[in-house]
Amino acid sequence: MFPLPLPMRAALDAARAAADAGEVPVGAVVMLGERIVATAANAPRRLCDPTAHAEMLAIREAAKALGRDRLEQCDLWVTLEPCAMCAGAIAHARIQRVYYGAADPKGGAVEHGPRFFTQPTCHHRPELYGDIGSAESAALLRDFFEQRR
Amino acid sequence: MFPLPLPMRAALDAARAAADAGEVPVGAVVMLGERIVATAANAPRRLCDPTAHAEMLAIREAAKALGRDRLEQCDLWVTLEPCAMCAGAIAHARIQRVYYGAADPKGGAVEHGPRFFTQPTCHHRPELYGDIGSAESAALLRDFFEQRR
Repeated sequence: MFPLPLPMRAALDAARAAADAGEVPVGAVVMLGERIVATAANAPRRLCDPTAHAEMLAIREAAKALGRDRLEQCDLWVTLEPCAMCAGAIAHARIQRVYYGAADPKGGAVEHGPRFFTQPTCHHRPELYGDIGSAESAALLRDFFEQRR
Repeated sequence: MFPLPLPMRAALDAARAAADAGEVPVGAVVMLGERIVATAANAPRRLCDPTAHAEMLAIREAAKALGRDRLEQCDLWVTLEPCAMCAGAIAHARIQRVYYGAADPKGGAVEHGPRFFTQPTCHHRPELYGDIGSAESAALLRDFFEQRR
């Protein structure tokens, strides 16, 4: 087994921080080449913002840092399969590649449900790489929900 | 022909303000009963934020104003059929009813493309009312794109 790429390790660290803050543990990182442009943890409760998924916060932070509303040449790393909201945002942002961890049969929109990037109304399709660090991501989510029962 | 409901007139005013600012003219309003909780104009360029659709900004502003990350009992009025990102956000926010103007065959996700609210992975389905003020909304969009050619 090869070691996890650095951006996914950073995304998992953010997911752990989300869990510590009482939020569903999902983390995301935006890279421009080898450089981390933004890192974010899922935070809808803390921020009082139903749109504050890790991917959304990382995309917004990266766009602000780069001073443009499109993230061509940027890659997104996220610990969980993106939902429809985040998949839509990824397309709007023109993200080049998406690397994600655990699949999400309940709420995912990449390989489940609407399979957004295969829709004719999707105007930008990133390269997609799933199942990266999925065991660690799934364990974080499982532990989080078990502790809440 | 009956007059347009006040929230849609406010959303159309926001769409006009977007056009004046050089943004694609879409506007949105969140209502709690008879009260306007948030009004927003589409602003991805101005805010350097690819997620800054009118619906997203209105939902985020409303959640902040009400101090909670779910907008149960709130209604969203928007001048254009929501895209996948915004439809996902509407579901996450638990919006009660969505009233929208023009249909959007190219990017809409309510009656086009993924038809998000019919997906088994969609965990909240608002009541949906389309084609409200659609002529005025479509005219704003047409004028905007004609002027840019």
